Amino acid sequence: MPSDDATLRLLITAGPTYEPIDAVRFIGNRSSGRLGSSLADRAVQAGWDVTLLLGPNAVAPEDERVQIVRFQSCQDLEDLLEQHLSRCDTLVMAAAVADYRPVADEVNLEGKRKRVGGALSVQLESTPDLLAGCAKRARQDQFLVGFALEPRERMMSSALSKLERKGIDMIVANPLETMDAGTIEATLIGNPAKGLEIQIETPGPISKPDFANWLIEQLTPLTRQRMSELAGNATNGAQ
Amino acid sequence: MPSDDATLRLLITAGPTYEPIDAVRFIGNRSSGRLGSSLADRAVQAGWDVTLLLGPNAVAPEDERVQIVRFQSCQDLEDLLEQHLSRCDTLVMAAAVADYRPVADEVNLEGKRKRVGGALSVQLESTPDLLAGCAKRARQDQFLVGFALEPRERMMSSALSKLERKGIDMIVANPLETMDAGTIEATLIGNPAKGLEIQIETPGPISKPDFANWLIEQLTPLTRQRMSELAGNATNGAQ
Repeated sequence: MPSDDATLRLLITAGPTYEPIDAVRFIGNRSSGRLGSSLADRAVQAGWDVTLLLGPNAVAPEDERVQIVRFQSCQDLEDLLEQHLSRCDTLVMAAAVADYRPVADEVNLEGKRKRVGGALSVQLESTPDLLAGCAKRARQDQFLVGFALEPRERMMSSALSKLERKGIDMIVANPLETMDAGTIEATLIGNPAKGLEIQIETPGPISKPDFANWLIEQLTPLTRQRMSELAGNATNGAQ
Repeated sequence: MPSDDATLRLLITAGPTYEPIDAVRFIGNRSSGRLGSSLADRAVQAGWDVTLLLGPNAVAPEDERVQIVRFQSCQDLEDLLEQHLSRCDTLVMAAAVADYRPVADEVNLEGKRKRVGGALSVQLESTPDLLAGCAKRARQDQFLVGFALEPRERMMSSALSKLERKGIDMIVANPLETMDAGTIEATLIGNPAKGLEIQIETPGPISKPDFANWLIEQLTPLTRQRMSELAGNATNGAQ
């Protein structure tokens, strides 16, 4: 059974994905990676061992103890999660993964389409749900956390349905209305199906650095509790 | 007639364009803007007055005397060129402008498409040729320079046809083969239709900073010559 001062290992993803159309063009999104990088900084300062999977052009953390691995596309991130997942206690999925990407057989990574004039159409396909994929492979002692940005009126119901659909432990739900506010007003919601009947709200709207501190403070005891419960079960021969 | 030490004014564009699909997604390209920013630095150090129109995530110049105006999309850049063109003596178009963008009535800048699963298609349309547009509006005393990256075997013919199609004064032609070489081996080619039967080659493959120096050294006398010819014509009453 892990002792209370065993080093916890955080795997965190941040930033956008860039999905290639050809050798020079891509479909990207405007995620800055700032929140994920800030979470990585706070976690390492709180004593966690932190690996950050970081997207293109995303803001890097300041603390040199954060181990950074870069990705470009959803496919890259999927491969990295496969490599790194088993070595973490908690996964926080803060990356803004593209939900669509150009269909693979139309992508030309060698060259560049010539300007031909007129119209053109890019066929897109859904990307795999990386967090749901991790939840399927994760061990019972691992703690998986996602994010949800939803309109305030249906935030709770959307968050609960996302928890169920993805099979993860907790979700950080933010009202869509506060997206550009500079402050964060979030609710950390547990998955009842995982025995986590918890809802913890931030103390009102707080700054992003304060939010990063707050979330790491919540995740530390939750991760330890999960690990010790499982260790306890194992010791007792329970399943 | 401008004296030999009159301050020359350079308008230069650099970096990629990001063409919005919706409020968060865009189609981008991998241009770093490094060469254009380096050209802006060298020009300002050589005594030019420099305005740089700079794309998203592009590397900024180091010299604080470069006046930087940021753009995001091809449309933004088109608007900025319209504002700034009349105030320059030379325009160097080093930006990697998207040649396709999402069709305007499909773009939803207010929201974000929901993940619906399955396939999706983004309709693209050609963007306007910004450099050709500038050439149509430019005064005779203005000097317009573009870039061409073409396979070595048809580099010269492609460059000449681009000069004609765009109606600009000169083109900097680079063999496609040297794209990732770290060095530049370029030919500065004049438009015969503008009385510029000139081809000037770099002294072999040179570093990017050396290339920036070299190009500004070529453009300085060419711009002065153009201005004094035109001023001479005006003085002589010729037209």
